[in-house]
Amino acid sequence: MPPTIALSASSSFSLVSSSSSSHNKATAFSRATRTDPFPTTFPNALRFSDHRLRRLPMISAAVSIEKETPEAERPDTFLRESSSSSSVRARFEKMIRDAQDSVCRAIEAADGGAQFKEDVWSRPGGGGGISRVLQDGAVWEKAGVNVSVVYGVMPPEAYRAAKAASADQKPGPVPFFAAGISSVLHPKNPFAPTLHFNYRYFETDAPQDVAGAPRQWWFGGGTDLTPAYIFEEDVKHFHSVQKSACDKFEPTFYPRFKKWCDDYFYIKHRGERRGLGGIFFDDLNDYDQEMLLSFATECANSVIPAYIPIIEKRKDTPFNDRHKAWQQLRRGRYVEFNLVYDRGTTFGLKTGGRIESILVSLPLTARWEYDHKPEEGSEEWKLLDACINPKEWIQCS
Amino acid sequence: MPPTIALSASSSFSLVSSSSSSHNKATAFSRATRTDPFPTTFPNALRFSDHRLRRLPMISAAVSIEKETPEAERPDTFLRESSSSSSVRARFEKMIRDAQDSVCRAIEAADGGAQFKEDVWSRPGGGGGISRVLQDGAVWEKAGVNVSVVYGVMPPEAYRAAKAASADQKPGPVPFFAAGISSVLHPKNPFAPTLHFNYRYFETDAPQDVAGAPRQWWFGGGTDLTPAYIFEEDVKHFHSVQKSACDKFEPTFYPRFKKWCDDYFYIKHRGERRGLGGIFFDDLNDYDQEMLLSFATECANSVIPAYIPIIEKRKDTPFNDRHKAWQQLRRGRYVEFNLVYDRGTTFGLKTGGRIESILVSLPLTARWEYDHKPEEGSEEWKLLDACINPKEWIQCS
Repeated sequence: MPPTIALSASSSFSLVSSSSSSHNKATAFSRATRTDPFPTTFPNALRFSDHRLRRLPMISAAVSIEKETPEAERPDTFLRESSSSSSVRARFEKMIRDAQDSVCRAIEAADGGAQFKEDVWSRPGGGGGISRVLQDGAVWEKAGVNVSVVYGVMPPEAYRAAKAASADQKPGPVPFFAAGISSVLHPKNPFAPTLHFNYRYFETDAPQDVAGAPRQWWFGGGTDLTPAYIFEEDVKHFHSVQKSACDKFEPTFYPRFKKWCDDYFYIKHRGERRGLGGIFFDDLNDYDQEMLLSFATECANSVIPAYIPIIEKRKDTPFNDRHKAWQQLRRGRYVEFNLVYDRGTTFGLKTGGRIESILVSLPLTARWEYDHKPEEGSEEWKLLDACINPKEWIQCS
Repeated sequence: MPPTIALSASSSFSLVSSSSSSHNKATAFSRATRTDPFPTTFPNALRFSDHRLRRLPMISAAVSIEKETPEAERPDTFLRESSSSSSVRARFEKMIRDAQDSVCRAIEAADGGAQFKEDVWSRPGGGGGISRVLQDGAVWEKAGVNVSVVYGVMPPEAYRAAKAASADQKPGPVPFFAAGISSVLHPKNPFAPTLHFNYRYFETDAPQDVAGAPRQWWFGGGTDLTPAYIFEEDVKHFHSVQKSACDKFEPTFYPRFKKWCDDYFYIKHRGERRGLGGIFFDDLNDYDQEMLLSFATECANSVIPAYIPIIEKRKDTPFNDRHKAWQQLRRGRYVEFNLVYDRGTTFGLKTGGRIESILVSLPLTARWEYDHKPEEGSEEWKLLDACINPKEWIQCS
């Protein structure tokens, strides 16, 4: 049974898991011992969808999705389709699961001891996910790497293609498929940067002849770096790897997606970016589908070479309390961005996604000091300046 | 010159101080050395306004307010009016400034050494404020107590009385007056609770014969307690003082405002309240104006007797790392509520209020652990249970 839509009187979308709809009245005991503490990474995978939903302030609808079931073992696939290993869906799922494996192996190797805790879950009607979290390691204070596959239904108003339909061709709810990998890696050492990456693929699932709801697909994602201190060689290395991945496909990608990243990770109330950027794109479907699948794969495969060498270089750098306090203040900015602006997070929080999966992106610790201003010319000032005035780290000619 | 409204193409309200409209392009240097680092507490005073603005998702308007000017000394009044000491405005301003003085004195006395840092500012056309922050004291890690007086102009659509106007009686922008006190006090000891209080008075300033925009006034505010551990005698004491303040005026106030408080400070995505409540009210104008002024005064005067005895009892309680970590996790919840739900904070962040004034409510430090669940029956579990299932702490018969 696929997820269904229920219209409600509320003034905003609410997406409520059937397992959590009554937790307001539950006791702490029942919360603490419920038998399905397995994360849905749905909100991350649905980042694009929120983007669309935000354009529709007047729509009142509640989407309910099936309760997830914990699984003892990882299935070969979370797809409903049994014989579609050559489909884009199947190949994208394989790609993100391979990327999850290789990133987690690389993180564990660099951490040198700590291991990811894994939660696997599925939904009876299809879809599911694998969440992995490493907490309080030697190198990382919190590292989360999640993949998910979601079969859902969106209100027709939330589907942009539906807008083209004429008044007498009102489409019904639009089934969709979404798959994605999402990760945030927060190291302990203040000289070792935080990394975030997320790659996702989306298809509407409507029959091709339904008026106003044609089949569509698109890709989204990006990788960005958030240091507390600038080592120019690190930032150049990181951006160079992103540019190399982009340049293999289209020379306009890196400059376009670099700017998109600077624009997206903007903490408007601070007038600052969260960090030093990278690449970000969304709604990408105006290139060959195979080409974009290869591009997303290349981007995901670039995470390790872009990030791990920086970590190896900085993880044991000596630091003092001032460095740690500044890192903690920047972690506060990370919290501000994620809770106030990030589409996946805000959508997930407002719609009832599994909270621990959504907020695994938050750092273990953060700090807010009143009216803190770095001394002019200091290393802290240089980082802040680069967050306020995004720089071109590498030549794009 | 009063603040003016400028319509913009943006899909949400944005309120931009003229001093910050170009800070995106400013360098860290110019940010760090700008000559007006004085806080506006505008967002707090405007909490109610956000409440109204939220009902109007389709309205596009930008409100710009005058740049604030730092003042070396506190003026006798921030009011424009020169001879109105008997007005409700003047008496409310005096009340909140007296309350700021007495609360700060009590905090400094209990802290035993640390002193509040004060910033005073005004605007040329009238209004201004006094912000006081004590950071890293012996007892409190962060304590902010702000008062402000704001003269502004709201779009007619944001003014509920305007809705009663017929189509041919479209009112223009509605001038308003707002004054408020707002405070958050975060102690260091995990057994000493956080306190928040906020009291505000609002008047529209339109001539009485303008169609659709009659003069109106209302009061809002509340005081609530957020401990990491429950000492039942403390919570009962706190609620009893709130009830006593309410009962002097109207027997329905305490039960009504206690429930309003539980409903308001609800972290929807957690299914938990931020803390153990207190009282909260908004849009209050259906009682005698003098009576409500006295009531708000009584509430503000109840802050010290409600809170300081609890601090004196708990500030030196021995604690261990587990207690501190739990306090830090609850501080994380405080951050989640304030950044995601609190009307004053979210309005201020989205509209360009002075960020340091808005975010002084955030704790110095906070923590997020993946999937943390207190052990059943533990002291941490009891606090969580009381946040999930609000309790009646005192008899209301």
